Amino acid sequence: MAISAEIKEKLASKQSSMIRAMFEAGQELKKQFGQDAVFDFSLGNPDLQPPQEVLDAIGDVFREEIPGCHGYMTNAGYETTRAAIARKVSAEQGCPVSAKNVVMSCGAAGGLNTVFRGILNPGDEILVSAPFFAEYAQYCGNYGGKLVPVDCREDFSPDIEAMERAITDKTVAVIVNSPNNPTGAVYSDADMVGLVQVLKRTGRNLWLIADEPYRDILYDGAKVATLFDKYSHSVIVSSFAKNFGLPGERLGFVAVNPVAKEDGDELVAAVIFATRSLGFVNAPAFFQRVIEKAVDAKTDFSVYEKRRAALMKILDDCGFEYLRPKGAFYIFCKVPDGGDDVEFCDLLKSHRILAVPGVAFGKRGYFRLAYCVSEQVIVSSEKAFKEVAATLNVGN
Amino acid sequence: MAISAEIKEKLASKQSSMIRAMFEAGQELKKQFGQDAVFDFSLGNPDLQPPQEVLDAIGDVFREEIPGCHGYMTNAGYETTRAAIARKVSAEQGCPVSAKNVVMSCGAAGGLNTVFRGILNPGDEILVSAPFFAEYAQYCGNYGGKLVPVDCREDFSPDIEAMERAITDKTVAVIVNSPNNPTGAVYSDADMVGLVQVLKRTGRNLWLIADEPYRDILYDGAKVATLFDKYSHSVIVSSFAKNFGLPGERLGFVAVNPVAKEDGDELVAAVIFATRSLGFVNAPAFFQRVIEKAVDAKTDFSVYEKRRAALMKILDDCGFEYLRPKGAFYIFCKVPDGGDDVEFCDLLKSHRILAVPGVAFGKRGYFRLAYCVSEQVIVSSEKAFKEVAATLNVGN
Repeated sequence: MAISAEIKEKLASKQSSMIRAMFEAGQELKKQFGQDAVFDFSLGNPDLQPPQEVLDAIGDVFREEIPGCHGYMTNAGYETTRAAIARKVSAEQGCPVSAKNVVMSCGAAGGLNTVFRGILNPGDEILVSAPFFAEYAQYCGNYGGKLVPVDCREDFSPDIEAMERAITDKTVAVIVNSPNNPTGAVYSDADMVGLVQVLKRTGRNLWLIADEPYRDILYDGAKVATLFDKYSHSVIVSSFAKNFGLPGERLGFVAVNPVAKEDGDELVAAVIFATRSLGFVNAPAFFQRVIEKAVDAKTDFSVYEKRRAALMKILDDCGFEYLRPKGAFYIFCKVPDGGDDVEFCDLLKSHRILAVPGVAFGKRGYFRLAYCVSEQVIVSSEKAFKEVAATLNVGN
Repeated sequence: MAISAEIKEKLASKQSSMIRAMFEAGQELKKQFGQDAVFDFSLGNPDLQPPQEVLDAIGDVFREEIPGCHGYMTNAGYETTRAAIARKVSAEQGCPVSAKNVVMSCGAAGGLNTVFRGILNPGDEILVSAPFFAEYAQYCGNYGGKLVPVDCREDFSPDIEAMERAITDKTVAVIVNSPNNPTGAVYSDADMVGLVQVLKRTGRNLWLIADEPYRDILYDGAKVATLFDKYSHSVIVSSFAKNFGLPGERLGFVAVNPVAKEDGDELVAAVIFATRSLGFVNAPAFFQRVIEKAVDAKTDFSVYEKRRAALMKILDDCGFEYLRPKGAFYIFCKVPDGGDDVEFCDLLKSHRILAVPGVAFGKRGYFRLAYCVSEQVIVSSEKAFKEVAATLNVGN
């Protein structure tokens, strides 16, 4: 056999081939009807340019070319970059974090892999509120772990009681993703207090891992709950992909709550070891220096807010049901009349609208629209959405 | 338990703590005696600046800031960058390779991890000629595989007969690293022909994986053997870390021999999948564009050649035994009088010379010197080496 049996099965799996089929169909549609006639809400690839401070920092790093600046540094990343991230996390969490509690990573995806490699024994379980970013399951599976989805409440908030019931002696961590992909929900402070109480009741210092790449993208006055002040064994994993529009540059970090003391130090050491042994070696040097200079840059998210409003208006007009998202750039809509999400996304596609069916996030009967596309695409998509609604007689 | 049992054991292992202890001792020595009074031959971190073409390309990529240039691209990397790499590999291997057979990776270390994730079932074995770059064992272990070292011949060439005997029904691949870390040996064309005959005799299409980050760093007219013309199921993994002095930027690639046909296509798909699911997602965007522009840049390796000569002269004068390295920037020396390598490196350290004991590469009784340090460091180290030799009465 040319490749591993597990990977062969994954490559052939329905989900993998479904996403590939959608991607290829989208490319095909764009070729056939032109780029502008296809309404591609499928991918969370931010189209906003990085803020000017980031662009300036790229120029500064280029001009500062100093001996060894493209060389290896310690696997954890530049001390000065880690210190800048520590200041940022300290401000966000409202408690002191130092550079030694931060490890620079190749994006949040790389960071999560190093954390999972660091904590998972084969058979260990990590809980997540469903729907969830499907790659979490792959990341766990890489190291013999198992992602255990727990259905969220009707309002997309985590069902704390259900999560408590889902904890077994194999559970080693809970992962929370707020603002959430795919729902756009921002978890309330009260829910996080409730979750922490559950974790404390186990008496086992389970890890609470917050995946926060969308932390800065908020609407309607929403706030992301702090965790370091609530729970000792908490870890923030994040990146500059979504807020600064740099997903291709692979720059993120892992920050471990200093209150976790020896356990925290052990996790930091494990993450550094995994950074090396998984072949990341270190987060890319050039963009570590860029981020160190531009960590406080602000993106104008009012652009996303306008798009959100434009897309919600179309969905309202069409009678599609959804919950108003408070963060990120996704709307998670109900398939009308309890229909099948894969079939519905095929219907959307036949009207040149590309969306991702809920099954890809562990929640049937929904579809995700990513509105990190130009307002023009959103406005132009109205007719197609209305045709779909008319087909289904939605709202009548 | 705060972290995985396996990682805890690895962190506590003799080898891991030995390297850490050496690193920390080195830092301590430099603080105590000053940067210039410590002769640090421990790390393969090239100190040459990138060639001017690469620096120019960095500036060009900065000035060409175009919408979406920091965004996600397909997980395999930019089509145009892959095409540039395909041209490079075609020229090196003397047979046509196209972009679709190339996947951009986060350095060679990232590339090897995606290949190993792609091919390994738990318990599968990969052969390597010892001594070898120790991280290979970690990379295999990440996915339940086992690295099987096979002692090299006296001249550091791979012992083809011994490798044939080491093949079991669990073997899925052989990894070759030429020019070699830690020996500097360049494997002969005849040895590669011999190895390919062994692989063909199995009738099982085992993968032949060449890790070639040192391919361009050659002396005395040495040449790296081609593989794609010899064996269908061959794979090149490489990077621009060592030749262009960019190890911190994490830019490498995996190229699969097109002659492997369906099996090759399957491996490419598996490597792309692993790139995504291990959290690399894609090789860093900015440096993909840099490398596309500067792939043909040439570094002046005569600098390393001079250092090699300077270091060999010192070793000769001291009576230390070694084989003249034909590539890379390492010399692998015998510990005098059959002494213990760890103890000998401690002795060297007491004279402020930092070297890596052979045990770290699976070969006791040797030590590695990395001469990617300034000629000044090499010249200044002479006195210390002579003191060590005098202590041992080497050559008398």
